[in-house]
Amino acid sequence: MKKIINAPEDYVDEMLQGIYASHPDQVKCAAGDLRCYCTAHKHDGKVAIITGGGTGHLPLFLGYVGDGLIDGCGVGGVFQSPSAEQIYNITKEVEAGAGVLYLYGNYTGDIMNFDMASEMLEMDDIECRSLVGADDVLSNKNPEARRGVAGIFFMYKAAGAKADEGGTLDEVYAAAKKAGDNVRTVGFALTPCIVPEVGHANFELKDDEMAFGMGIHGEPGVWNGPIKTADELAEESVGEILADMPLEEGTEVALLINGLGATSVEELYILNNSVRKQLDAKGVKVWRSWTGEYATSMEMAGASISVCRVDDELKGYFEHPVNTPFICQK
Amino acid sequence: MKKIINAPEDYVDEMLQGIYASHPDQVKCAAGDLRCYCTAHKHDGKVAIITGGGTGHLPLFLGYVGDGLIDGCGVGGVFQSPSAEQIYNITKEVEAGAGVLYLYGNYTGDIMNFDMASEMLEMDDIECRSLVGADDVLSNKNPEARRGVAGIFFMYKAAGAKADEGGTLDEVYAAAKKAGDNVRTVGFALTPCIVPEVGHANFELKDDEMAFGMGIHGEPGVWNGPIKTADELAEESVGEILADMPLEEGTEVALLINGLGATSVEELYILNNSVRKQLDAKGVKVWRSWTGEYATSMEMAGASISVCRVDDELKGYFEHPVNTPFICQK
Repeated sequence: MKKIINAPEDYVDEMLQGIYASHPDQVKCAAGDLRCYCTAHKHDGKVAIITGGGTGHLPLFLGYVGDGLIDGCGVGGVFQSPSAEQIYNITKEVEAGAGVLYLYGNYTGDIMNFDMASEMLEMDDIECRSLVGADDVLSNKNPEARRGVAGIFFMYKAAGAKADEGGTLDEVYAAAKKAGDNVRTVGFALTPCIVPEVGHANFELKDDEMAFGMGIHGEPGVWNGPIKTADELAEESVGEILADMPLEEGTEVALLINGLGATSVEELYILNNSVRKQLDAKGVKVWRSWTGEYATSMEMAGASISVCRVDDELKGYFEHPVNTPFICQK
Repeated sequence: MKKIINAPEDYVDEMLQGIYASHPDQVKCAAGDLRCYCTAHKHDGKVAIITGGGTGHLPLFLGYVGDGLIDGCGVGGVFQSPSAEQIYNITKEVEAGAGVLYLYGNYTGDIMNFDMASEMLEMDDIECRSLVGADDVLSNKNPEARRGVAGIFFMYKAAGAKADEGGTLDEVYAAAKKAGDNVRTVGFALTPCIVPEVGHANFELKDDEMAFGMGIHGEPGVWNGPIKTADELAEESVGEILADMPLEEGTEVALLINGLGATSVEELYILNNSVRKQLDAKGVKVWRSWTGEYATSMEMAGASISVCRVDDELKGYFEHPVNTPFICQK
């Protein structure tokens, strides 16, 4: 295991200590619990947006907490859900009188705990709505059963912008849902990653092998085989996305080329270039793209491609300035 | 070779095509040469700052071109210097009447080509000064013979801020030099990386082995041995830095915890936490820290630690807002 760590059982808390010490003007914890991660900039009357999920995906999930994005994040163990109590404690800290949106990835443990926290809020008369990201096309034929992966980036941006503009809970929910309804993601891994407390990879890939359609926790993909070129991967990925969400010629999209951890930014821009060629050939116009690490799996090599159909409303949300310790857009 | 690429010989140009297509409002190329990378926001009367170096270190070097930082970058092949002609063409594009600072890493090929470009400028009556980053403590006992690594981050920030404030060439040079004089870096690698056109690593590390003091092109370090913990690496690194640049109790420093490519951001914050403990024990105060990928070596796993002694002048430079396609600070 080639990691720069101390005791594996201290992985999450030492990471959090480093983050809080580095960004005291921007974030703080609630209830004396490092894993209750909250913005230090609460705005009265704003809808509070809260997420959560397992550690090991930075900047997901906590990296999206900050100005113009979201307000709190429950930090679970590596690839584990935060508890309902943690989510509840975060909510009590950041809730600002305009209701709460729970926005997180479509995983069983997270759904259970966010639902439980939501029930606790009912007793406090705090209005709460929940929405999951479920953008991973290859994880299931049924859109509602799909895993949430990097596409939640666009949902955070839409919800965060709408809340910042003073939107109501229903409006913030609708903005996030519109982004979620219009985004599709396909990903692939070239190497596995290692959960620190386990100490070895939970699957293997040969020296020349990759896994197409793999999830960010190493969930099996649709095929394992020899590594393809960036052009071939772009063609296959864009093909899967457009088969699921047909786009007319002239449609504008936002593009997210996301690195899973170990893949260099150089390669991500090569992939960006390959994806643009594919979309261009189909008459789909890339309005704007983001390239870098937005949802990772520790030291996994690989990438994901998210395509989000945009109109003027979504463009406005995606152009909204944001500033967190991990993500900055002017 | 687990990379998402097409033909290895197209690696640099396809990367650049992806970058230009993604950020047309911020950057452009000069002289019809993709590798002459320039800001799209030229400001008359501002000192122009130009860098350059080999590909494979994103966001170094081109990622620093943008508002509040630098103006142009010569893009070499993987781990190769850009040519004197490319540097000259960039200079002619971004030079804005107040002279030019060449600011780059201390490598023989780069020095030769920047010096040659500088001689070409003399004939055009354009004033030019040159400065190299040479912050890698373990690369040589002689400070002037040291390699430039991630510490140039602070030199770019100081020079960029001073130029943005309307400083003269001498003032911009002095700002960058002051940052350079006060920064020291120690780095270590856990895995090698692969030059695409070579196709295999140029050295090996065993499954439990790391290289302490290794350079970002795989230059040998001071020891190879079993992987140490984050706390042990922080202790040894801070020890080397303070042996080279003794700091009195109460001194304030800026800290850069830089990932070399494959190391997760989670680990970098664990290392940040470990380094803070070391500095704290010595009475050195961390004024502010940056954590992430600022100078990489493609898919190399590992990190570097840069410590920069700060006063009010340097703090002002480092707080200056910047915005490039790769680096944003409000």
